[in-house]
Amino acid sequence: MNYPFAKKENYNKNVVDYRNRGMDLESLINSANEYYLEMDRAVIYKKPTPIGILHVDYKLNRIKDAYFKDKSTFDYNGIYRGKYIDFEAKESHVKTSFPLGNIHEHQIMHLRRILKHGAVSFLIVSINSEYYLLKGEDLLNFIDNNSRKSIPYSYFKNCCYRIEEKLRPTLDYLSIVDEVYFKGE
Amino acid sequence: MNYPFAKKENYNKNVVDYRNRGMDLESLINSANEYYLEMDRAVIYKKPTPIGILHVDYKLNRIKDAYFKDKSTFDYNGIYRGKYIDFEAKESHVKTSFPLGNIHEHQIMHLRRILKHGAVSFLIVSINSEYYLLKGEDLLNFIDNNSRKSIPYSYFKNCCYRIEEKLRPTLDYLSIVDEVYFKGE
Repeated sequence: MNYPFAKKENYNKNVVDYRNRGMDLESLINSANEYYLEMDRAVIYKKPTPIGILHVDYKLNRIKDAYFKDKSTFDYNGIYRGKYIDFEAKESHVKTSFPLGNIHEHQIMHLRRILKHGAVSFLIVSINSEYYLLKGEDLLNFIDNNSRKSIPYSYFKNCCYRIEEKLRPTLDYLSIVDEVYFKGE
Repeated sequence: MNYPFAKKENYNKNVVDYRNRGMDLESLINSANEYYLEMDRAVIYKKPTPIGILHVDYKLNRIKDAYFKDKSTFDYNGIYRGKYIDFEAKESHVKTSFPLGNIHEHQIMHLRRILKHGAVSFLIVSINSEYYLLKGEDLLNFIDNNSRKSIPYSYFKNCCYRIEEKLRPTLDYLSIVDEVYFKGE
């Protein structure tokens, strides 16, 4: 499929397009969440990076030594259409597949738990300059029934849901959530 | 009302009781959440403290300068009985009342938003060595209909739900959530 902007780019490198080039996946999602909050459509936040604080200068109220902790949950959670929503954003730096090593063992355990409790949970994966919603159930299914260490690009094209970039919100992932989880409601 | 442990304590200061003395409210709740997770009863985590990172030593992978950011949401969230749950824990250092200055304006806005979207949301307040669940709706009601800058202790005694300390979980707040939000289910 050819996208008009992609085509235009080939003709004239100086033409400004409205895609959010240069914004990484996290910025795109944060910006979408701000928009959803503003529109009162959902209340979803990125969790702060977990750190272990080793030293605080109490006079300045500044952290002077700390380390990054491993994440045991997903990055984003909140409420949408009355449901608990909990997801992770991942960028694949390989064009042909998404390495499963990107997801910690603890995060897979977390995913199993929250799905059991009724959460809406998924990954948003950026691969090959495209964005896909990968359902948590499908991810577990893939992991449990494959010995592969990565998910091929073709799996995203065939079994996941593509999220288009827009102006506002930059990455309208909730419209895809509507289609996938709330169809017919 | 007299509690057996409190009474015992008066008789013999050396008797070991099973209350979790010395544990602050945050530790009590974290410990309860670990227990709930283990029992597969709920998946609730404390959000990491939000910080702004100013300098990272990439060789050591250590944060060498950072500041504490203001919180715009509540500290704890997750899923319980299929519902989005989101709450804050607060210790009152005054015995006669709970100063409302303890809660940021942004947090009140957050509370209004999530309640509108169908969240189960409340405060757990430690006051006078007792623990109370204060419903989010009641808190907003109090704020919107009072010019008072604090909630008197009597309000907790008369209008909130007392949470007892136990051995495991240390603070069984979900049993109170059951009573308050899921009665008859």
